[in-house]
Amino acid sequence: MLKDSLTKYKRIVLLTDGYSTPFLAKTAISLLRYRGDDIAAVLDKEHAGQTAQQLLGYGESIPVVDSLDQIDADALFIGIAPPGGKLPAQWKPIVMEALRLGMDVVSGLHDFLCNDESFVVAAHERGAKLIDVRRNNENETAKAVDFRRECLRIHAVGNDCSLGKMVTTLEIQKGLQERGCDAGFAATGQTGIMICGSGIPIDCVVSDFVNGATERLVLAHQDHDYLLIEGQGSISHPAYSAVTAGLLHGCAPDGLIFCYESGRENVKGFDHRVIPEMERIYSAYEIMSNLRHPCKIIGMAANTRHLTEEAALAEMQEMESRFGVPVCDVYRFGCDKLVDAAIQLRAEIVD
Amino acid sequence: MLKDSLTKYKRIVLLTDGYSTPFLAKTAISLLRYRGDDIAAVLDKEHAGQTAQQLLGYGESIPVVDSLDQIDADALFIGIAPPGGKLPAQWKPIVMEALRLGMDVVSGLHDFLCNDESFVVAAHERGAKLIDVRRNNENETAKAVDFRRECLRIHAVGNDCSLGKMVTTLEIQKGLQERGCDAGFAATGQTGIMICGSGIPIDCVVSDFVNGATERLVLAHQDHDYLLIEGQGSISHPAYSAVTAGLLHGCAPDGLIFCYESGRENVKGFDHRVIPEMERIYSAYEIMSNLRHPCKIIGMAANTRHLTEEAALAEMQEMESRFGVPVCDVYRFGCDKLVDAAIQLRAEIVD
Repeated sequence: MLKDSLTKYKRIVLLTDGYSTPFLAKTAISLLRYRGDDIAAVLDKEHAGQTAQQLLGYGESIPVVDSLDQIDADALFIGIAPPGGKLPAQWKPIVMEALRLGMDVVSGLHDFLCNDESFVVAAHERGAKLIDVRRNNENETAKAVDFRRECLRIHAVGNDCSLGKMVTTLEIQKGLQERGCDAGFAATGQTGIMICGSGIPIDCVVSDFVNGATERLVLAHQDHDYLLIEGQGSISHPAYSAVTAGLLHGCAPDGLIFCYESGRENVKGFDHRVIPEMERIYSAYEIMSNLRHPCKIIGMAANTRHLTEEAALAEMQEMESRFGVPVCDVYRFGCDKLVDAAIQLRAEIVD
Repeated sequence: MLKDSLTKYKRIVLLTDGYSTPFLAKTAISLLRYRGDDIAAVLDKEHAGQTAQQLLGYGESIPVVDSLDQIDADALFIGIAPPGGKLPAQWKPIVMEALRLGMDVVSGLHDFLCNDESFVVAAHERGAKLIDVRRNNENETAKAVDFRRECLRIHAVGNDCSLGKMVTTLEIQKGLQERGCDAGFAATGQTGIMICGSGIPIDCVVSDFVNGATERLVLAHQDHDYLLIEGQGSISHPAYSAVTAGLLHGCAPDGLIFCYESGRENVKGFDHRVIPEMERIYSAYEIMSNLRHPCKIIGMAANTRHLTEEAALAEMQEMESRFGVPVCDVYRFGCDKLVDAAIQLRAEIVD
């Protein structure tokens, strides 16, 4: 588990230079959305002079800059999550410059910064730190413990990757906190870890230890009344179902939020693979989770970005009658009904 | 994937010194069972002079010896799979002696031989090899390919660990071969790899790549008419379900053999966890596998070692009527019905 909390950084520069599109820069966008107060600037040479809001749709007046020496920053965060996870070659001088300025550099890439000798030497010379969020040495299997009963565990799952599971959990956490509830967030992916400061990059853990790493993550956070556990992949995903199944059993949730994107028919990045019918995946989650711990789906999070507002509202209504649970688009219309469902579930189980 | 085939060794010494019990020495026992002709000796000082048959129940007249220099051997295989996976400290001199004699040393332990500098130096000096079966650098996600339709994929699954999944697949392979069918075996664990010479130690693969590694393993073996894919863990296992789910989707089986042990009520090594009802796990496998590829359970393998022969036969009959599929104890009564079921499934799907 990443021990050094990344929330200590309060003057962060987000590096998205040349990659400032919504798909590639999703790490930067999520950090602007959830840690806007800690972001000093976005570095993208071509768009210097704009605001983060103009460039990436979040971050209001946070400036876009073309070099590091204009700003007083404490860390450089790699702001992209490209397929393949490599550091763009033209970014190497930027990382070196940050280290020379004594800034820590935080990366969620598959390619670890600390495997680059020149980075290691430069960091050492200036006392700067290289933090590879995906690096881990989780090496213990799960013990199948009973978690604290008073901690209601809510886990976001879905029928595919990249459709809003992290945002759904963060929004429900915020919604619960706004109602005065004590709600924690357990991050399982690089962006979630950069946002909340700690967590386990579960897709990089050796398979024998995935359930165990997740169990330890919950044990470290079960002092909360509610714990929102970030989801990954999908139980139906041809490539990532190992990660999803291990997470599901490792965190032994009481309730699940089922996330999907309206209109998505094929597995993202696998155009030759149709996503199975939603009822089948929905049922698979309930069956699989109950093998470990009593659990039910308490709501759905629809990502309706490709629909008009009218169509989105109609679809949500249709899904509510189809599945018999509340459905929200947490981006567009908030997550009130999902917060209600979590509070109701806790009342049923704990109180 | 382990490229260097371990089947080239024809004069193997199995090291079980001080650990020659059925539970700890299961790697040695399986090698005696399936590669008896390639085993030159078993090394256990205290029991030197006995036969392998006397000491471990397999291997007939293969001698148990107290030192390596009595025998002309080409490799030393670590014959145990202890919980924790460490090399016993008192074995270090034995491994060093093997390397000094120029023997290759093959290990399935979690603790890699090649991380011990003195072993590396000794091996280098004599041109001997250290082969850590569990070491892998699988680092690609699954592509969700369509496998060759003419290759019927049969995968062994179960409701717990250590109840005979590997033996079941090896026996069905043998049974198919005895009927003149072309049947291959894809090993996913250290013992299976030592027996058939190659494979992927799937529980040591990073979770993001488990489905992909399994897919590549099948691609490498799909020239057979039948491919028996070794199973690991259980979809219901609180600690290992990530491994099992990734295997299940990675190999996209056409048929499953459901393995269980009569009378086992609790998860092995987790006395506080009851194994869920068999119908639920059975159904979970069919639901999960069908999310990837059309699949059904075509038979069950009962491990009835704790029952009398009469009780075993009665239980198998009862299970057949309960689940509607053929049930065999492949150790005690052979696997004819499971071989029939595989041949019938191939006739339905392929022919």
